[in-house]
Amino acid sequence: MAHISIPEGIPGIVGPMTVYPETAQPLNALAEALLRGQSSLTPAERELIATYVSHRNECRFCTMSHASATRHLYGAAQQNIVDEVLCDPETAPVSDKMKALLAIAAKVQQGGRNVRPEDIAKARSAGADDKAIHDTVLTAAAFCMFNRYVDGLATWTPDEAAMYDRMGANLATRGYVRSIQEHVVQ
Amino acid sequence: MAHISIPEGIPGIVGPMTVYPETAQPLNALAEALLRGQSSLTPAERELIATYVSHRNECRFCTMSHASATRHLYGAAQQNIVDEVLCDPETAPVSDKMKALLAIAAKVQQGGRNVRPEDIAKARSAGADDKAIHDTVLTAAAFCMFNRYVDGLATWTPDEAAMYDRMGANLATRGYVRSIQEHVVQ
Repeated sequence: MAHISIPEGIPGIVGPMTVYPETAQPLNALAEALLRGQSSLTPAERELIATYVSHRNECRFCTMSHASATRHLYGAAQQNIVDEVLCDPETAPVSDKMKALLAIAAKVQQGGRNVRPEDIAKARSAGADDKAIHDTVLTAAAFCMFNRYVDGLATWTPDEAAMYDRMGANLATRGYVRSIQEHVVQ
Repeated sequence: MAHISIPEGIPGIVGPMTVYPETAQPLNALAEALLRGQSSLTPAERELIATYVSHRNECRFCTMSHASATRHLYGAAQQNIVDEVLCDPETAPVSDKMKALLAIAAKVQQGGRNVRPEDIAKARSAGADDKAIHDTVLTAAAFCMFNRYVDGLATWTPDEAAMYDRMGANLATRGYVRSIQEHVVQ
């Protein structure tokens, strides 16, 4: 049971967002701008960073929903990328740029001051520009917020894989603002 | 020097917000709704939670700017509250409700799953309602983001106390959206 009153059967972050729309609006606008707006990283790459940070924060709801969104964005031929990154980004089938950015994301997850100039230099030499570095740091930071919001209120984490598949498909195709609006309206 | 290109002389989070307005807009809207919108907690109490979490995350810029905003909101007669809370919330001159909420904020800062039903029960028995618990969890979570954004990009942390006093006064009187807009326009 959640720590505060939330209507039954609404999964994860959608619960408190439904009850508190005044903060849901900027939270969804942030996710939309950060994960789907203009960037030198693809939406799939940004969702992968979000999934990786959620996994490191041991937030089951965010890990499973964003893993599903990432799989939908990468497509059928690259289904194993998420599991391999969660297992070990260094040996996963992603670019050196993504490996360097995932290493930065892991440091941000532990605390912002862990990021060293040499981490940034490694990402730049692999092709990351300022926007990619900015979006990686802010995505990692933002999921340290989303994960804590979901788990700090003990929201409902469904078990059915099919539910996460649907949520991921919605996030991948409709995005954050529309998916939440449609859920609230239902 | 910051890890990405930011105009000289712009302190802390204002730097990346100036360069990346697409994420600055929802970030400021979130801070405004969370710290200054309708709540059963006063703006001073919410700024105090933000300061306490920033201190625990060892983010000097956020701690000093929000400590200043908190002092401006509490007023001259209660200037020592911030320092006493940062030293030890249990012995600080705040209500039992605030002590219980600061304890929840400290747990969220470490990770959302640390919050136990007994922490919530203690806050409720001291008078906290759902909105106070929600705002405490989300404020603590949000400052785990803001702190990582500021430090993960190695933004500029000024040393002059007078600069934080001005920033805090601006945040306390004008709020987040207007303060940032005015800074960007200058």
